[in-house]
Amino acid sequence: MKKALEGLKVVDLTSALNGPFCTMMLADYGADVIKIEPVNGDQCREWGPIDEKSGESGFYCYVNRNKKGVTLNLKSEKGKKMFYDLVKDADVVVENYKGGVTTRLGIDYESVKKVNPSIIYASGSGFGQNSPISHRACYDIVAQAMGGMINLTGYKENNPVKVGPSIADHVAGIYLTVGLLIALYNREKTGEGQLVDVSMIDTIFSLLENALVNYTVGGIIPERNGNIDPSIAPFDVYECKDGFVAVGVGNDRLFEKFCKTINHEELLEDPRFTTNDLRCKNYVPDLKNLIGQWCKDYSKKEMEDIMDQAGIPCGPILNVKEAIEHPHIQAREMMVHCEHPTAGDQYFQGCVMKLSETPGSVDTPAPLLGQHNAEIFGLSEEEVKELKQEGVI
Amino acid sequence: MKKALEGLKVVDLTSALNGPFCTMMLADYGADVIKIEPVNGDQCREWGPIDEKSGESGFYCYVNRNKKGVTLNLKSEKGKKMFYDLVKDADVVVENYKGGVTTRLGIDYESVKKVNPSIIYASGSGFGQNSPISHRACYDIVAQAMGGMINLTGYKENNPVKVGPSIADHVAGIYLTVGLLIALYNREKTGEGQLVDVSMIDTIFSLLENALVNYTVGGIIPERNGNIDPSIAPFDVYECKDGFVAVGVGNDRLFEKFCKTINHEELLEDPRFTTNDLRCKNYVPDLKNLIGQWCKDYSKKEMEDIMDQAGIPCGPILNVKEAIEHPHIQAREMMVHCEHPTAGDQYFQGCVMKLSETPGSVDTPAPLLGQHNAEIFGLSEEEVKELKQEGVI
Repeated sequence: MKKALEGLKVVDLTSALNGPFCTMMLADYGADVIKIEPVNGDQCREWGPIDEKSGESGFYCYVNRNKKGVTLNLKSEKGKKMFYDLVKDADVVVENYKGGVTTRLGIDYESVKKVNPSIIYASGSGFGQNSPISHRACYDIVAQAMGGMINLTGYKENNPVKVGPSIADHVAGIYLTVGLLIALYNREKTGEGQLVDVSMIDTIFSLLENALVNYTVGGIIPERNGNIDPSIAPFDVYECKDGFVAVGVGNDRLFEKFCKTINHEELLEDPRFTTNDLRCKNYVPDLKNLIGQWCKDYSKKEMEDIMDQAGIPCGPILNVKEAIEHPHIQAREMMVHCEHPTAGDQYFQGCVMKLSETPGSVDTPAPLLGQHNAEIFGLSEEEVKELKQEGVI
Repeated sequence: MKKALEGLKVVDLTSALNGPFCTMMLADYGADVIKIEPVNGDQCREWGPIDEKSGESGFYCYVNRNKKGVTLNLKSEKGKKMFYDLVKDADVVVENYKGGVTTRLGIDYESVKKVNPSIIYASGSGFGQNSPISHRACYDIVAQAMGGMINLTGYKENNPVKVGPSIADHVAGIYLTVGLLIALYNREKTGEGQLVDVSMIDTIFSLLENALVNYTVGGIIPERNGNIDPSIAPFDVYECKDGFVAVGVGNDRLFEKFCKTINHEELLEDPRFTTNDLRCKNYVPDLKNLIGQWCKDYSKKEMEDIMDQAGIPCGPILNVKEAIEHPHIQAREMMVHCEHPTAGDQYFQGCVMKLSETPGSVDTPAPLLGQHNAEIFGLSEEEVKELKQEGVI
């Protein structure tokens, strides 16, 4: 089946996470992504977990599937020339260096535009290209901190806590994809290229939702509140026999169903719980404790099934293994296999966006270091050898 | 300045959060988004914070800026006919009903395709269109639970905790935008429309990062680990004079700078801390406590400045007010003003993706209920009145 982005040539200067996650999406949906690595490889080739047999990084292979890989020393004149040859007929360049680095290397938007005026140049970084602190290095935890996410996560009685996985990196990569696709759509109409610039701090800040308008409209500075939603009750995570389960009872109709389901119809007569507003005010401690007590007799799976039957939004807190094995994830093909030449069968996340006519898919494994040097640069075996010796590729 | 998506006609059936966040992005970058609300309005018109003067919801107005608004009773035959007139020349339909609802209403992809074969029909939902549990209602907390996020967030010694803001809703909305833009790009080349289907569970599952390959490659089921990264140390959140600060010391070179900065050069000689691997093993309790002790003498702002000077990734844990006022957020124009006809000046998040030639912007406020009925449906004042009386608009 044909893919949506077939024929789109993407020169990929990214490393580690936010940039590669963006170009992974492009590659999954058919773009020709040429990943340029330094001569000694993307740093995340060394990130665990490492496959014992082959020495390949599971993480690197996941996020670089479907791409072709070349090596290039961008500090050498020859390397830079080869880069410019490559971008001449490219549609998109993606990079995620720290602010200022591409300019120092002479591979920034202004430089690339000179050889390819209609290029879409997509930059993902911690602080973006025009912030007073663009020069700073940024880890995911720093973006979660300064973007306002950590302050809103965790229990009141404990210290604030970061979101476990690196959501700043991931979501910045997804936004970068949106930005460059919008720019591509515009180029289809006008022929004009442009610079697309996404910051990890801005990314996190854009996810704060109601917390932000609660301050600008309501004058309240929201703080972390555990699993409780201040405007819906019951809405919480409860401990059950073999773990935890999330339950959300969003309105009076659901509350009635819920009380019947847990055999506590007396709650419907209780003046403390007759409306959602009252339930929010009086949820702690009695209503919370009563529900918590009920849940203790059931397993996660039992809870999921009972609430499903009753039509009440509920989901077990799944660990990675349980999530992978859940019938939903399996039915949605959210886990896929890929055969790697040295590491063998690999098993990792599939494609999120289900397109009925031009679906994404995982077709080829992540490249070995410099695997496509000859093919992409049009070099003979001899030339590859020479350029390697010179430290160019 | 021209916007990238100008001329793109989007019929927007969405309510609450994930769908509206998708169409907000389209509208910010120039698409003509026509938001269809039921006759009594999108439920989130009643979500707090409510502006006291006008009764407008801050949340509704934020996520629906730049859109035009009409009302339509899709259960009435006349209403359905008006919907079909509207989609005949539309480019995109976006909806986020629970799985199965659009089919019952007769406004699903198959039905719309009959009057507009090249339509891009984008569906955002909890469980997607083809899951064994598509019929279930889903809250953000349920997606965070089943997608594997809650299990990975929080401190070991406490219960797991959800991410504060509704990231499943938001990120599913961003993915939906990526999906429909990919489909649009394909349509520019082939003329063909299609269905784009994004699930909130899949969305969360796709963000699990290394946790997933740690299981499939390394055989380890990762659990929550507070603010500590198992593969980098020091990498943590520390309490300081007036709050908390995140610090990430990613390699030996940074560790040397860091030890000098905090006047603890003796650590560089300590055999427990000479490599990152050793630091990871021996971080708790001594290294953690020593750094924690040092931080107590400084404010967040002082810490940020000291670490910036030293070139060490660091960020204060900012609350919403502090994040809004931070020079980075201000310089990036991540907060924008918008004048609302009844609520007056509104102040909310700006546009994340910075496009150099066709930037996004907030130009018009969210619509009043049914504000554009006459304009969009081409109705006289008399006809508007009649259709209102009939309960159609």
